[in-house]
Amino acid sequence: MSLNDKYSEVRLRTEQICQPLKTEDYVVQPVVDVSPPKWHLGHTTWFFETMILKTFLPGYTEFDSHYNFVFNSYYETLGARVIRTDRGNLSRPSVEDIYAYRKHVDKAMNELLGNDLSTDLKDLLILGLNHEEQHQELLMTDIKYILGHNPLFPAYMAVPIDKALQKGPSDWINIPEGIYEIGYDGTEFCFDNELGRHKVYLNAYSIASELATNREYLDFINDGGYANHTYWHAEGLDWVKKNNCSAPMYWYLINDEWHNYTLNGLQKVDLYTPLCHINFYEASAFAAWKAMRLPTEFEWEAASGLFNWEQRWEWTNSAYLPYPGFAKAAGAVGEYNGKFMVNQMVLRGASEVTPPNHSRNTYRNFFHPYLRWQYTGLRLAK
Amino acid sequence: MSLNDKYSEVRLRTEQICQPLKTEDYVVQPVVDVSPPKWHLGHTTWFFETMILKTFLPGYTEFDSHYNFVFNSYYETLGARVIRTDRGNLSRPSVEDIYAYRKHVDKAMNELLGNDLSTDLKDLLILGLNHEEQHQELLMTDIKYILGHNPLFPAYMAVPIDKALQKGPSDWINIPEGIYEIGYDGTEFCFDNELGRHKVYLNAYSIASELATNREYLDFINDGGYANHTYWHAEGLDWVKKNNCSAPMYWYLINDEWHNYTLNGLQKVDLYTPLCHINFYEASAFAAWKAMRLPTEFEWEAASGLFNWEQRWEWTNSAYLPYPGFAKAAGAVGEYNGKFMVNQMVLRGASEVTPPNHSRNTYRNFFHPYLRWQYTGLRLAK
Amino acid sequence: MSLNDKYSEVRLRTEQICQPLKTEDYVVQPVVDVSPPKWHLGHTTWFFETMILKTFLPGYTEFDSHYNFVFNSYYETLGARVIRTDRGNLSRPSVEDIYAYRKHVDKAMNELLGNDLSTDLKDLLILGLNHEEQHQELLMTDIKYILGHNPLFPAYMAVPIDKALQKGPSDWINIPEGIYEIGYDGTEFCFDNELGRHKVYLNAYSIASELATNREYLDFINDGGYANHTYWHAEGLDWVKKNNCSAPMYWYLINDEWHNYTLNGLQKVDLYTPLCHINFYEASAFAAWKAMRLPTEFEWEAASGLFNWEQRWEWTNSAYLPYPGFAKAAGAVGEYNGKFMVNQMVLRGASEVTPPNHSRNTYRNFFHPYLRWQYTGLRLAK
Amino acid sequence: MSLNDKYSEVRLRTEQICQPLKTEDYVVQPVVDVSPPKWHLGHTTWFFETMILKTFLPGYTEFDSHYNFVFNSYYETLGARVIRTDRGNLSRPSVEDIYAYRKHVDKAMNELLGNDLSTDLKDLLILGLNHEEQHQELLMTDIKYILGHNPLFPAYMAVPIDKALQKGPSDWINIPEGIYEIGYDGTEFCFDNELGRHKVYLNAYSIASELATNREYLDFINDGGYANHTYWHAEGLDWVKKNNCSAPMYWYLINDEWHNYTLNGLQKVDLYTPLCHINFYEASAFAAWKAMRLPTEFEWEAASGLFNWEQRWEWTNSAYLPYPGFAKAAGAVGEYNGKFMVNQMVLRGASEVTPPNHSRNTYRNFFHPYLRWQYTGLRLAK
Repeated sequence: MSLNDKYSEVRLRTEQICQPLKTEDYVVQPVVDVSPPKWHLGHTTWFFETMILKTFLPGYTEFDSHYNFVFNSYYETLGARVIRTDRGNLSRPSVEDIYAYRKHVDKAMNELLGNDLSTDLKDLLILGLNHEEQHQELLMTDIKYILGHNPLFPAYMAVPIDKALQKGPSDWINIPEGIYEIGYDGTEFCFDNELGRHKVYLNAYSIASELATNREYLDFINDGGYANHTYWHAEGLDWVKKNNCSAPMYWYLINDEWHNYTLNGLQKVDLYTPLCHINFYEASAFAAWKAMRLPTEFEWEAASGLFNWEQRWEWTNSAYLPYPGFAKAAGAVGEYNGKFMVNQMVLRGASEVTPPNHSRNTYRNFFHPYLRWQYTGLRLAK
Repeated sequence: MSLNDKYSEVRLRTEQICQPLKTEDYVVQPVVDVSPPKWHLGHTTWFFETMILKTFLPGYTEFDSHYNFVFNSYYETLGARVIRTDRGNLSRPSVEDIYAYRKHVDKAMNELLGNDLSTDLKDLLILGLNHEEQHQELLMTDIKYILGHNPLFPAYMAVPIDKALQKGPSDWINIPEGIYEIGYDGTEFCFDNELGRHKVYLNAYSIASELATNREYLDFINDGGYANHTYWHAEGLDWVKKNNCSAPMYWYLINDEWHNYTLNGLQKVDLYTPLCHINFYEASAFAAWKAMRLPTEFEWEAASGLFNWEQRWEWTNSAYLPYPGFAKAAGAVGEYNGKFMVNQMVLRGASEVTPPNHSRNTYRNFFHPYLRWQYTGLRLAK
Repeated sequence: MSLNDKYSEVRLRTEQICQPLKTEDYVVQPVVDVSPPKWHLGHTTWFFETMILKTFLPGYTEFDSHYNFVFNSYYETLGARVIRTDRGNLSRPSVEDIYAYRKHVDKAMNELLGNDLSTDLKDLLILGLNHEEQHQELLMTDIKYILGHNPLFPAYMAVPIDKALQKGPSDWINIPEGIYEIGYDGTEFCFDNELGRHKVYLNAYSIASELATNREYLDFINDGGYANHTYWHAEGLDWVKKNNCSAPMYWYLINDEWHNYTLNGLQKVDLYTPLCHINFYEASAFAAWKAMRLPTEFEWEAASGLFNWEQRWEWTNSAYLPYPGFAKAAGAVGEYNGKFMVNQMVLRGASEVTPPNHSRNTYRNFFHPYLRWQYTGLRLAK
Repeated sequence: MSLNDKYSEVRLRTEQICQPLKTEDYVVQPVVDVSPPKWHLGHTTWFFETMILKTFLPGYTEFDSHYNFVFNSYYETLGARVIRTDRGNLSRPSVEDIYAYRKHVDKAMNELLGNDLSTDLKDLLILGLNHEEQHQELLMTDIKYILGHNPLFPAYMAVPIDKALQKGPSDWINIPEGIYEIGYDGTEFCFDNELGRHKVYLNAYSIASELATNREYLDFINDGGYANHTYWHAEGLDWVKKNNCSAPMYWYLINDEWHNYTLNGLQKVDLYTPLCHINFYEASAFAAWKAMRLPTEFEWEAASGLFNWEQRWEWTNSAYLPYPGFAKAAGAVGEYNGKFMVNQMVLRGASEVTPPNHSRNTYRNFFHPYLRWQYTGLRLAK
């Protein structure tokens, strides 16, 4: 696919995701980790305007000089910005204004894409598209949060969207001791945090062929798993107590029957689909209750050719740290990954709301261990 | 005017206030004290549905059983409700849904109003209309907050709405020592907190014929008033330091010139209009800097026939406490005023965003001493 | 009594209060409102050193130049100071050092007191002694808090100290409508907030001859008083819920029997002594449950010749506000009372830990409505 | 050395550390991470009483049944306990009581130690002694915090205690690529987190022969290192801004000259001693400013035979995670290490306040990345 076509496809897909929304749904930020959909629409556009058009398209006219303040996410290099918790307090720019902003930038981008592009510029453009794809997934998870925490529990859409993922029993895949190569070494796009392909020595281990299911987790709940401190990290137990948690996010016990909020509204929990919306503490506690553990990201990657990994982001027991030889790029782009390499855990895989072909078996997703609004599950190891 | 006409007029006026808004403006809650405009639209409607229709209109069909949870403000009698800080997290019900809700309730109310009404029901209805008028003022102040704290500083409307209030110099009105009657004793509607007309003994005092102006307050600022602890209550000084305050709300120093946000957008401060958007601490500190004081609510009321009091809500140095013989009504209506009679200060007067004929010289408005998003000013006494 | 003798007596009494303490008890600050006993010992001494000796005793040598920072409580005029929440974090100056500081200052004060003193200086000295007496009461309440919140519940002393206050039934004292004079007009010492004797017009009212008792309050508890919102201010109900309160401070239900911590250790609650350690919200809720109310401070003072008022600080329904003509003194002494005249409620009376002859029937004590570590009770009115 | 002698030696050393303290210094807790010295004295004793005496010494009489509540640190298995932030609010048990507690437990332990001990019991005893040694280091760091944050800056003792650690220039030690064995495999005591000796594949790297010095860090400060976001993790930058940090803990700029608080009181910063009291964010930022990095704990251990590592705890860029095959022990002892394996970073080495022979080159110390009250420094790698 040409870069022009790829650009159009990605940009269109973002807007298609928002198509079922009411204007009001674009605006709110019910919790700090969630951004308003209209902010995602603007921020992904600002990325192209700021990183590409202002530098590389001669004569480009900025759409609105206030937007840098409104749509900068976390780039210190690029100046002051709305504090994160204020994103949901901004009624303006309106949704209509932001769609106009997208149109304005797309027009200029199309002009730029008609020219001969340097390799560096192509790389930047591809980064911008991958960035927008990451926000497509965040859009889906944030929309789910916005609707799923509304007392009316509105459905995102009537057509079932959570893929049927019914699971049979899991087998153990046995991996022998030895040296494995970890990290990306292909010729396509990858993020800087995947680079630095390097050798890792692994002891022999076994990894499950399937993800843990709702049924297994329900056994953990019913066995008093949330109340038994021996399964939990100390910080996990604090989190459980402080938030009075006793089930995954979106689970509600209604008339003694477990329901969960899905993009189609409230549904009875399907016992045979993979567990979802748990955080690292819950994943670890569940594994401890099974007398097993989570795999490291290296174990996961070394075995990834032997199982289907596109069903859920899978918590690993690896902290998000640089690979040998990792180096930040200069300038604003250098703020993409490296500065987050502390206090976060790595997730591997993909989910049903990950854009097609966006992930890889070397892809390193990462979140703080207490977060669970993403499509997060787990695969056992021992 | 008939009750039918009055009902229609008040309900229409609420919607007219919202007419200049974009859908997004209806949704946000940038600070806990502000409610989203769509919440005001729903809550005032819920008041009629819950307090009147459900009880007095046989066969009335509730619009949506979830709405009691969403639109109850603070009535413990009437069940669980969205916590106040979550009002701005709700994208649903949509603005369109809420206008449909208003239509549904108005239709039922019109049916009810076609019947012969008991005195009690008429009283309740009039309370509901006064309640909606109070929310009309809150709508205006909350809209101003929403737009005035947006980095784009959009105007509410192009037509100047802040009334021209140019002031000449103030005179002193001298009131002799003696017994004065305080509280409402007319035959029209008043709130329960105005009742219990009673005698108050006042020492001789003088009260200003005009409100303090922006020019006078600017002198206070320029004289270092915010930094001089001798003018401030201890809690006021804490508020100044914690919030790093140095001017009224909505004031911005741009290129060494003071501007303030108005409903017409950012404007240069007009020096000869009454000071606005200060809190009780600031009002007290300003008065102390003048070597004067704020009047008590009794001094204010006793003199209120001798000055124009419809320009700004005026901070008094009276705490909001019950008059002799004050009694709460039974049921939910009893939660209207009495339970707030601690830690708040009384304001008297009215403002340019108070609905016409809503206020009286016995009207007791009240807010916490740190709040300043209402149209609040001051009149000096000595 | 000569001023010399009075000075010695007051200073000695402070140290006698601390006599039963262990060194460790002098140091801790378990909650922001409580100060460490050693801080009280130092602060009352600093008051004499700073307000009197440095100005009026030629050649006086400051004990330690760091102490102004450590022992200034809230006087903005007198420079930077340890933030209040840090008082319990300071192990130095040691208790021994502070007793040496007291000796140093007492010696210098005795030298000064040997001279002829101006009236102004005498007034300042008497203020200093009254200030120290106020801290004697705070010392007692803070020591009670420190020991009463320790898991070992140590007694302050073995000899019963809470006076026997057994009550018979209360009568109603009826006071006729009319004008009453309020405020101090004697020739002895009083605080500035009692001055400005003025006329107040009161409606006819009845006031109880006795304080409310533990037995009555237990009835309120057993009747579900803490759970019934109709009795509570909105802020009171928030306080109940947030702190999960269901009884006065220091009450513990042990094996189904109510105990309370006293200066003699844990004891069964004596039903016939006056209720103690409730805050304004609880006092108001109890009165509402009785279908009565709290008196205003004016009603209280007007009737104070007709009942015994030395048993407990009694919450009134009056906010702490200036009397007509109130004026702050110049300089640091002016920070004594006026700057606290917002958001606090007046208490009248005295308690068993008030120093002898310290209080008067015009004395205005004041605390925030949520506080209850003082010896606070209530007298009903209607 | 016999176990009896070792027990006596360790227990005595703890008390010797406290010998220079005043009683007041034993009591306070100026920040949540610091525990009052008397709590350390009691907690280490409670460890022997609870883990050993109650189970293994027939007829042992508990000293005081309240002490389990007071001195349990974080063992969920062992019941309710004082919340951590309340440790400094407890004036009782007194210091004298706690020394009596130590004597009581030591007497019983000596009795037990006179018997033939099983291997399991010996292991438990050795764990208890290593536990007390860890608290000896914490005692020193907590005492330093208590005295070093007091406005009087008292010295802990007059005799210089911070060892002279003057450094010459650092060389680079080059380590070749290959497989290295990591983890403890000796026959003496080690903690469970060091076990599971395993192979790790390392790329070639260079590691500094000496620690970074104050002089080098001062260059970083003077070069604007705290203000330049490119050197910092995002969370590190938040920490800098929120806490307004611009130098290591205990550094004060006095008359344009840098001083730091030491156990001998305030001193001019010695430029040629190793940098101390920085957190992981500061260590990482400094390394980034040098265009280098921190070593991983594996790189550190593999090279540890080639440099002196007993001068400072050294931040590594490794998160604290389990080694392959790590398993928690059953019961309370299992809560020692494993439950903290999230959100903390590993430090290697030892410090001048580490008890003699307590550390090893396989020892894994760990703290949250924002903490810096320990003796923490860094060694560069590239």
